[in-house]
Amino acid sequence: MTTTIGVFDSGFGGLTVLRALIERLPHANFAFLGDTARLPYGSKSRRTIARYAAESAQFLVREQGAEFLVIACNTASALALDAIQGAVSVPVLGVIEPGAAAARAATCTGDALVIATDATVQSHAYAAACHAEGLRSIEKACPLLVPLVEEGWISHPITAEVIRIYLAELTAEAAVAGLNPDVLVLGCTHYPLLRPLLEAAVPAGVRVIDSAQAAAEAAFHRINGHVAPQATDVPASPTSIRCFATDSVEKFERLGSRFLGHPVGQVQLVDLGG
Amino acid sequence: MTTTIGVFDSGFGGLTVLRALIERLPHANFAFLGDTARLPYGSKSRRTIARYAAESAQFLVREQGAEFLVIACNTASALALDAIQGAVSVPVLGVIEPGAAAARAATCTGDALVIATDATVQSHAYAAACHAEGLRSIEKACPLLVPLVEEGWISHPITAEVIRIYLAELTAEAAVAGLNPDVLVLGCTHYPLLRPLLEAAVPAGVRVIDSAQAAAEAAFHRINGHVAPQATDVPASPTSIRCFATDSVEKFERLGSRFLGHPVGQVQLVDLGG
Repeated sequence: MTTTIGVFDSGFGGLTVLRALIERLPHANFAFLGDTARLPYGSKSRRTIARYAAESAQFLVREQGAEFLVIACNTASALALDAIQGAVSVPVLGVIEPGAAAARAATCTGDALVIATDATVQSHAYAAACHAEGLRSIEKACPLLVPLVEEGWISHPITAEVIRIYLAELTAEAAVAGLNPDVLVLGCTHYPLLRPLLEAAVPAGVRVIDSAQAAAEAAFHRINGHVAPQATDVPASPTSIRCFATDSVEKFERLGSRFLGHPVGQVQLVDLGG
Repeated sequence: MTTTIGVFDSGFGGLTVLRALIERLPHANFAFLGDTARLPYGSKSRRTIARYAAESAQFLVREQGAEFLVIACNTASALALDAIQGAVSVPVLGVIEPGAAAARAATCTGDALVIATDATVQSHAYAAACHAEGLRSIEKACPLLVPLVEEGWISHPITAEVIRIYLAELTAEAAVAGLNPDVLVLGCTHYPLLRPLLEAAVPAGVRVIDSAQAAAEAAFHRINGHVAPQATDVPASPTSIRCFATDSVEKFERLGSRFLGHPVGQVQLVDLGG
């Protein structure tokens, strides 16, 4: 039987995580929910985020039959992973621990740079996850990068210059703190679209770690531990992808294909309440 | 008796409108409410925005004693002015009609450029208001300007370059449409902070029209028609300003002073539900 993987985000940035999952698990079925009516999660309290995320997770498990959940949202991963795990009975994976684990696997110096949104940085979830992996880290909020991606300026000279400014500030801070970082963790699901500009801008010797890819890799290993591998004589189903949003279906459909790498198709509107 | 003016915004950008109101009506009392828990209004349905805006207006009138309301939010002005007028019994003024009226007063050619957020442009509320004033107009969404202001880059070379790109696109579109604009309407409450850069970037002969100032001017005339002028032998009270937010008090206090032009003081948290 084909595994159904539920993927949840507060918006549609998590489609970069879905894209990485499809590449790593090409025979799974996917149900993606963007809770667009209630974004941004970043400005809301932990209790409110936990309630929203739990409701979204229950929709994916109970109504879409998800057997495994990926929380493709840094804010929800940082603030609501426990609440989601308590709300559903299937395995739940966030994006933050896999990102930190991938940084540990890649670093030689043990020092990491992290860029993310304001809300994720304020939660210090990456710093905590890096610390748990034995790494030192320094985080920087880069609030202009999401709007630049959503404006479509993913290879624009303005975006290159904004990235140059942010990374110069971050590496200067790291130097002051006595760190010698050789990895840069992308702590926001929008940032993989900026990977070429980021790779061009990082100091020599610094590797870019994509939390979306790291989460897909972790999901692959967790699923192959939790779900019986498909019998080789049963042909795998082609990947089925269903996308749901709680509002803003138009923007989702318009921008989503850029994140997913191919058309998202028709996005179904669902009402999860308040 | 001193008039109490209620000022409402979905966030805190409307503090630029409050600033203009204080300059024009220095002896009034002000109660400002930013419905920060439920922003952004721009991605929500008209019915939801109307309910949120009506609840916010009722808080200002019933609990803060506002005798006059200014809707310092372009989205709410575009989509919920009727709902607010139906929810309270005091006069209600939006920012869009005053902006269009100020454009009509300033233009010689009868053609206007309008820049605003995506949501305001999609509502075409400025185009309708300009049309009602007998003007032709062309609108452009400038989604990077709000994040640039909130990043504090209000006189940064990056911001100047983004403005140059947006205005070049807008004036090219206007030329294609056969318009000869000589006014640029700022259709977002964040944009007055960019006025110096915008004035440096507009083509020669184009005047910048600030909807915040236009709304303050309109409020002055409406209030002097609705409220008896103060007796000259009673000394006017100094302006009292109370600020309320439904969430994110920290960001409000941190960024608010930049918009208001002086410290916002302590912001009180209020719960309007849902």
